[in-house]
Amino acid sequence: MIDTAQGITRPRGFRAAGVTAGLKKSGKADLALVVNDGPAHQAAAVFTSNRFAAAPVIWSRSVMADGLLRGVVLNSGGANACTGPQGMIDAQAMASQLAKGLSCPIDQVAVASTGLIGEALAMDKVIAGIDLAVDQLTATGGQLAAEAIMTTDTVSKQASYVSPSGWSIGGMAKGAGMLAPALATMLVVLTSDVDLPAERLDEALRLACAESFDRADADGCMSTNDSVMLLANGASGVRPDDLEFLTALKLCCISLARQLIADAEGAEHAITVCVNHAASVDDALEVARCVARSNLFKCAIAGNDPNWGRVLAAIGTTEADFDPDQVSVAFNGQTVFADGRPGVDRHLVDLTDFAVAVDIDLDAGEQTGTIWTTDLTHGYVSENADYSS
Amino acid sequence: MIDTAQGITRPRGFRAAGVTAGLKKSGKADLALVVNDGPAHQAAAVFTSNRFAAAPVIWSRSVMADGLLRGVVLNSGGANACTGPQGMIDAQAMASQLAKGLSCPIDQVAVASTGLIGEALAMDKVIAGIDLAVDQLTATGGQLAAEAIMTTDTVSKQASYVSPSGWSIGGMAKGAGMLAPALATMLVVLTSDVDLPAERLDEALRLACAESFDRADADGCMSTNDSVMLLANGASGVRPDDLEFLTALKLCCISLARQLIADAEGAEHAITVCVNHAASVDDALEVARCVARSNLFKCAIAGNDPNWGRVLAAIGTTEADFDPDQVSVAFNGQTVFADGRPGVDRHLVDLTDFAVAVDIDLDAGEQTGTIWTTDLTHGYVSENADYSS
Repeated sequence: MIDTAQGITRPRGFRAAGVTAGLKKSGKADLALVVNDGPAHQAAAVFTSNRFAAAPVIWSRSVMADGLLRGVVLNSGGANACTGPQGMIDAQAMASQLAKGLSCPIDQVAVASTGLIGEALAMDKVIAGIDLAVDQLTATGGQLAAEAIMTTDTVSKQASYVSPSGWSIGGMAKGAGMLAPALATMLVVLTSDVDLPAERLDEALRLACAESFDRADADGCMSTNDSVMLLANGASGVRPDDLEFLTALKLCCISLARQLIADAEGAEHAITVCVNHAASVDDALEVARCVARSNLFKCAIAGNDPNWGRVLAAIGTTEADFDPDQVSVAFNGQTVFADGRPGVDRHLVDLTDFAVAVDIDLDAGEQTGTIWTTDLTHGYVSENADYSS
Repeated sequence: MIDTAQGITRPRGFRAAGVTAGLKKSGKADLALVVNDGPAHQAAAVFTSNRFAAAPVIWSRSVMADGLLRGVVLNSGGANACTGPQGMIDAQAMASQLAKGLSCPIDQVAVASTGLIGEALAMDKVIAGIDLAVDQLTATGGQLAAEAIMTTDTVSKQASYVSPSGWSIGGMAKGAGMLAPALATMLVVLTSDVDLPAERLDEALRLACAESFDRADADGCMSTNDSVMLLANGASGVRPDDLEFLTALKLCCISLARQLIADAEGAEHAITVCVNHAASVDDALEVARCVARSNLFKCAIAGNDPNWGRVLAAIGTTEADFDPDQVSVAFNGQTVFADGRPGVDRHLVDLTDFAVAVDIDLDAGEQTGTIWTTDLTHGYVSENADYSS
């Protein structure tokens, strides 16, 4: 149902490009464009709630006010965050350059950046890169764009959905993050050829994010640059009903969120923490997130150690509704703790597979919530201690 | 002023012992006793707020109700947490055995355990160990007791204070933790020969903990076993005034807390995050704690990288009162961010020393708060991924 081989250029009426502007020392592609060729130019976006929002976030938030977007310029190799007044000048200059290339108003261009915080962008390279990318825009450029936004990602992330009714959604993502709070900068662009006004796109995007990117939590850190943008052009001529569109959008976002987690920095296990029988969804998510953020738990999983005591220690710090003697915990289907005492021998649990399922039953209601996370590995420390990012 | 070479047997009228009961595979000492020989037996305690409190915590909390304590038995090599009804039976049996040895009521004996969660204690070894330790109680046994409670600690932790007025305080600690929330099990026993009633000890202990152990945060994880106990016997015949005693107690607790942080699992840097000019102490602590819990920041410090962007990204997730354009950040005295833009070149910051100072100015008021933490290193991952603890 979800195709991860195609992304933002799967829907009709979009072009994309990915080029090397020279921002990355590696010489890899570092600048991407996404352009909506219409007929409509409706758009919605969700940004980081970090109070030190990066200049491109401040710019893009302001241009989203009217729900109109012709294109997005994205760069890796520099976050343009905490860069003072110069950062705003640079973000605007990026928008201005793409607006010239597309012959559209500057306030119909959004900007997104990712990389090290606090360093000014090499704007001569950025401007030349935008011109180069405009020349290379194609209706099959989605893959190149997805590659150009990668930072510590080891693979590009795409997802697309095609409706039997003739419309489609495509998306690309980089980083591994959640929105509020969020972490290693997550940039996501989604495209669709549905005929929907900005208000309905906005509503669907917020709902879809809440159940996808907001539930991915690799290391609990919130970025200054996280941005998720959705562009729609009506090229299919179809206006799907709300639920049908929301469901498809959510599937694309969940696919991208899980691709982000699976490729999170240093991840050796992708962990699904699922809380069942909670009194509320908020309770379920509080418990799941608290476990997902326990460094001791995450290290244990890295060591293939079903150390359920660390799960209980994390659950015990929450204010969720539960009776400690009624809680049960299972690792990969083996119930290691139940009814206030140890369950099956922990040595029966096999954690050698990449995917790990931790199921927690609070026995306090009928609600459920899931958080996707990763283990805490030597690779994570190496990636984040050994060079600035 | 604080002597870290002596601990719980520095004050008059206390005996202690540390023996090998055989709970640790290493054969190292794993069982400690602290005994108050009076004349008074006043006591106070603070325990973990984790809802999965270990059996010894449940036991000790109940016996503290009357503020009377003759002795404490502590073991490493097993936390006796999440062990079901058997855990309570075992904790009580430990208290009972020491009570027999001291010929005192069972409800005047507290118990503390540390080690792996979810495994039953080898009670035959524990009981024999208690008997052995009772035989070895001496007025100079504080050092041996401090060693017997170590788990992943690499050095024992002691602190003592002697008042010019003739009374003293002594203490020992293991683990690296804070109380609410708290982490790698922290066990602390404090002794004093002051003549103070339990109510005043309790008040002083809560205030001292709030400004010492509660401000140490190595990895943000709260343990099921954290316990801080204070025993006082009046042997000096002196009743100090409240402020004098509180000040001395706080100094001992701060010394122990900082020793815990300096020896936290895998620590290669001890980091002091100090927030100044906050609108409230709560704001200051929220900001400092948020930075201290950022894995990205902690990895950067491990790599001697003054990555101040990660500090701002953490600050930006708080709800503290501040204007992002007025915040400044300094690493080891070098102001790397001020007035909404980069400050001195990050390469001027030298992070090679063990001690790192991160000073954050919120320019929002007159309050201050400090959190002590550590970096996130390969050593931390190794200690917590490579074996169960």
